[in-house]
Amino acid sequence: MSSPRSQLHLNLFLAPLGHHEAAWRHPGSEPRRLTEFALYQEIVRKAEAAKLDSIFLADRVAASPESLRHGAVGGLEPLTLLSALSVVTSRIGLIGTVSTSFNEPFNLARRLASLDHLSGGRAGWNIITSGTDGEARNFGLHEIPGHAVRYERAREFLEVAVKLWDSWEDDAVLADQAAGLFADTSKVHPVRHEGTYFRVDGPLNLQRSPQGRPLLVQAGSSEDGRSFASEYAEAIFTAQQTLADAQAFYADVKARAARFGRDPQTVKILPGICPVIGDTEEEAREKEARLHELSNPQHSLLQLSNRLGIDLTGYPLDAPFPELPEPEAVRGHQSRARLIAELARSEGLTLRGLLERLAGGRGHRTFTGTPVQVADQLEAWFRGGAADGFNVMPQLTHEGLPDFLDKVVPELQRRGLFRTEYSGSTLREHYRLPRPASLYAAKPAPSLPG
Amino acid sequence: MSSPRSQLHLNLFLAPLGHHEAAWRHPGSEPRRLTEFALYQEIVRKAEAAKLDSIFLADRVAASPESLRHGAVGGLEPLTLLSALSVVTSRIGLIGTVSTSFNEPFNLARRLASLDHLSGGRAGWNIITSGTDGEARNFGLHEIPGHAVRYERAREFLEVAVKLWDSWEDDAVLADQAAGLFADTSKVHPVRHEGTYFRVDGPLNLQRSPQGRPLLVQAGSSEDGRSFASEYAEAIFTAQQTLADAQAFYADVKARAARFGRDPQTVKILPGICPVIGDTEEEAREKEARLHELSNPQHSLLQLSNRLGIDLTGYPLDAPFPELPEPEAVRGHQSRARLIAELARSEGLTLRGLLERLAGGRGHRTFTGTPVQVADQLEAWFRGGAADGFNVMPQLTHEGLPDFLDKVVPELQRRGLFRTEYSGSTLREHYRLPRPASLYAAKPAPSLPG
Ligand SMILES: Cc1cc2nc3c(=O)[nH]c(=O)nc-3n(C[C@H](O)[C@H](O)[C@H](O)COP(=O)(O)O)c2cc1C
Ligand SMILES: Cc1cc2nc3c(=O)[nH]c(=O)nc-3n(C[C@H](O)[C@H](O)[C@H](O)COP(=O)(O)O)c2cc1C
Repeated sequence: MSSPRSQLHLNLFLAPLGHHEAAWRHPGSEPRRLTEFALYQEIVRKAEAAKLDSIFLADRVAASPESLRHGAVGGLEPLTLLSALSVVTSRIGLIGTVSTSFNEPFNLARRLASLDHLSGGRAGWNIITSGTDGEARNFGLHEIPGHAVRYERAREFLEVAVKLWDSWEDDAVLADQAAGLFADTSKVHPVRHEGTYFRVDGPLNLQRSPQGRPLLVQAGSSEDGRSFASEYAEAIFTAQQTLADAQAFYADVKARAARFGRDPQTVKILPGICPVIGDTEEEAREKEARLHELSNPQHSLLQLSNRLGIDLTGYPLDAPFPELPEPEAVRGHQSRARLIAELARSEGLTLRGLLERLAGGRGHRTFTGTPVQVADQLEAWFRGGAADGFNVMPQLTHEGLPDFLDKVVPELQRRGLFRTEYSGSTLREHYRLPRPASLYAAKPAPSLPG
Repeated sequence: MSSPRSQLHLNLFLAPLGHHEAAWRHPGSEPRRLTEFALYQEIVRKAEAAKLDSIFLADRVAASPESLRHGAVGGLEPLTLLSALSVVTSRIGLIGTVSTSFNEPFNLARRLASLDHLSGGRAGWNIITSGTDGEARNFGLHEIPGHAVRYERAREFLEVAVKLWDSWEDDAVLADQAAGLFADTSKVHPVRHEGTYFRVDGPLNLQRSPQGRPLLVQAGSSEDGRSFASEYAEAIFTAQQTLADAQAFYADVKARAARFGRDPQTVKILPGICPVIGDTEEEAREKEARLHELSNPQHSLLQLSNRLGIDLTGYPLDAPFPELPEPEAVRGHQSRARLIAELARSEGLTLRGLLERLAGGRGHRTFTGTPVQVADQLEAWFRGGAADGFNVMPQLTHEGLPDFLDKVVPELQRRGLFRTEYSGSTLREHYRLPRPASLYAAKPAPSLPG
C-alpha cells in the first residue's frame, strides 16, 4: 500500500444544483427537483464512480421567508437523505451535518450508528454548533448562545456520544440460539454520564457499528473552533483563500493536535475549492461570468448578513466595504467574518465587489482554469503542506461536477495523487484512519490505520 | 371504486425476527442479521408484493444490559431505516415511531417531511409519549413524567409540527429561473408558536411534502391516550383480546372522534393480531408450542416488569397472578396494565400462565388456526364493527409472514375484502384518507378522500 502522504483525499460538498448562489437559475439546473431523491442519487453515483472518498451534506435549521425569495434554500434533512443514499451506493463515505446545539446526544448517537450499520461503515458526522439567531428561535431560544458556551456544549455532547457508541463492545452480541443467550451483558456498559449539559444513563440501544464510531468531521476556525477540531476531529473542513494562509492553518492545527497527544496524521485537513473548469482558460472564465450575471446582489447581501450575523442590507453597494465589528464580538461564525473582512481589505473591494467574490463559494477559494491548471493548484497545496485533500465545491453541479470528475480526477490519477480503485470499504479506511477500540474494552485491541 | 367500508386495511408490524419473544432462538431465525439492511428489505418487499397498506416500526429509546441477556433487543432507529427502505419500495406506506417526550418538534417535523418527500408520499408517524424511567434517564430526567403531562406535551408538539408542515403552502415554490424568483414569500409562513413546552418561529426549512402531513398514527388506550388519539390520530393501533372489547373500543373512539367534529370514517382502527397459521389446526398449534418451548420465563418476567413499570421479578411463578396497583397509579403504559390484569383475572392464570399468554404478542390477540379460520376471524371483526383493518404481528417472521401473505391475504382477496392492486400511490390514499390543506392556505381547496 502507498504511504499515507502520497495520495490526497477528495470530498464532494454536495450542493444539489451548485455552490454558486445563482446556480439554480442556470438554464441547465432543475430547481423543481430539489426535493427529489433521484437528483441526489445521480450525483452521488457519479462521485462514487470517480472513487471519491466521501460526499458531504451541510445543514442549517432555519430558512426565513425572505431568504427564499431569490434563493433556492431549504431541503431534505441530511441524515435522512444519506440513509436513502446508502442503499444506492456501496463504497463512498456519507458525511452529514447535525448541530450539537439543538439535539440530544442519545438520539443523534443512535441515528449515526444506525447509518453506519446501514451503510456498512460509511457514516461521518460534521459536528456543528450552529451560528444564527434564526436557528435558535426554532428551538425555544431568543438568540444563539455565545461561541464559548456552544463549543463547551459540543465537547460534552461528543463525550456522551462516544461513550454511547462504545457502550456495546464489539463482541458483545453472542446470538447463541441454543443457550438462549443474546448478549454477553458484561460487555454492554451503562455510561452513567452526569455533566453540565447532559445526564445520560445508557447504554445505547444498538450494537456497536462497523466503524465503531462515525468519522468525526469539524469546520470550526475561530479559536474555540480550532481548539475543538484539533482535539476531536478526524477530518477538518476549512475555507482558505491563499496558499500561505492555508499552510499556516495546516501547521497550526497539526501542532495543536500533537499537543493533545494525537498523531497529526490522523487529522486530515481539507480546504474548500470551487473549481470552474474549461478546456481553455477563456472557456472557464466565460462559465464563471455566466453565473455571476445571474446573481442578485440584494439576495447576496441578505445571505452575507445572515452568515455574519450582521445586518448589512442598509449599506451602499458601491461604497468601499465597511469596517466590521471585531470578530471576537461576532456571536455567529467568527472565523468566516474574519476571512471576509480580510478579503475585502486586502483586495480593496466595494461591497458589490465582495459579494461577487463570495457568490461562487461563500469565502471558499474559487479557481478558474483548465483541468491541468486545477490539478496543478491542488498538487501545489497538497505538496506544499497546506492540505491533505480537498473539499470540492462545484459552482454549478450539472456542469462543474462532471468537469471535475471526468477531467481533473483522471489528471490527478495520472500523477499518482489519487486512487484509481477503492482499497478499503469503510469511510475510515478511505481516509486511512484507525478504527477506534471501545473505551470500555478490557484490553483494547491494537487499532492501526487500515 | 369500492365503498370505503368494503375493504379492510393491513399493516405489517415489522419485527425483524418475529413478535414472539423467543423468535430469535428459532433455528430458522438469523439474529446476527438484526442490524443488516438486507433483512428488512426482504421483509418489506414481500409485504409490498402482497399489497399491504403499510409497514410499521416500533421504538423504545433505552435497552438495559439485563434485558439483552436473553432477548434480542435494540436495533436501528426507525426513521433512518425507513428512509433506506423508501428506496427499495414504491407503494407501501412507511410508518415510524418517534417519541414526543424526547424530541424537538422542528427536527422531527423536518425528518418526517423529508421521508415523505423521499418516498413520494408514504410517510407515517406513530406518535408515542414513551412510558419508562429507563428511557427518561437517557434524556436528563430521573423518571418518566406522568401520563397527563406527557400527553399535554404531545398535543402541543403535534400542534407545532402541523404548523411547520403547513408553513409552506403547496404552491409556494415558483422556481422561476428567468425572473430569479424561487419562492412566493407570501405563501411561506412564519409559525410564531409560543406555548407551554415549545417556542418555535418557523417556517420549516423544507417545501410542503407530497402528503401535506405524514399519516398520524397513535396507540394510546388510557383515558388520556384515547382522548388524544380520537382528536388527532388517523390510524389507531390497539391491543384487544375479545370481539366484545374491540367493539366497545371501536365504538368509543369513533364516538369521541365525532365529538371532536371529525368524520369517524377518517379514523381507522387497527387491532393487533398475532396469527399462527398451519394448513391444519394441529400444525398451527405445533408451531405455537415450538416457540413457547424456547421462551425463558425469567426474561419474560423482566420484559413484563419493564412494560408495566412494576417490578414483578420477585413473585413466585406458579402462584396465582398478584393484584396489581390500580391502573390509574401506573405512570407508564396504563391501558396495557389494565388489559393484562383483566386477562389474568378472567382466565384465572398463574404468573407463568400469563407470561405464556403474553410471550407471543405482549397482550395483542393471538389466533391459531388455518388460513380460512384466520380469514374468518378477521372478517368477523371487520364486519362486526370491531376493526377497520389489522395490525399484523407474525410471531415468527421468516415463517409466519409468508404464511400470512401467501395464504391469508389471497383468501381475503377472494372474499373481496382486500385489494389485489394498489389504486393509489400515497399512504393516505391506501387508507382512503384525505390530503389535508395547509392551515395557512387562503382558500383551502376542498380535500376529499382519494
Ligand atoms: C466546508 C464547511 C462546511 C460547513 N458546514 C456548515 C453547516 O452545514 N452548517 C453550519 O451551521 N455551519 C457550517 N460550517 C461552519 C462551521 O461549522 C463553523 O461554524 C465555521 O467554520 C466558523 O467557525 P467557528 O464556529 O469556529 O466560528 C461549515 C464550515 C465549512 C468550512
Ligand atoms: C401496536 C402498538 C404499538 C406500540 N408501539 C409503541 C412503541 O413503539 N413505543 C412505545 O413506547 N409505545 C408503543 N406503544 C404504546 C402506546 O403508545 C401507548 O403508550 C400504550 O398503548 C398505552 O397507552 P397509554 O399511553 O394511553 O397508557 C404501542 C402500542 C400499540 C398497541
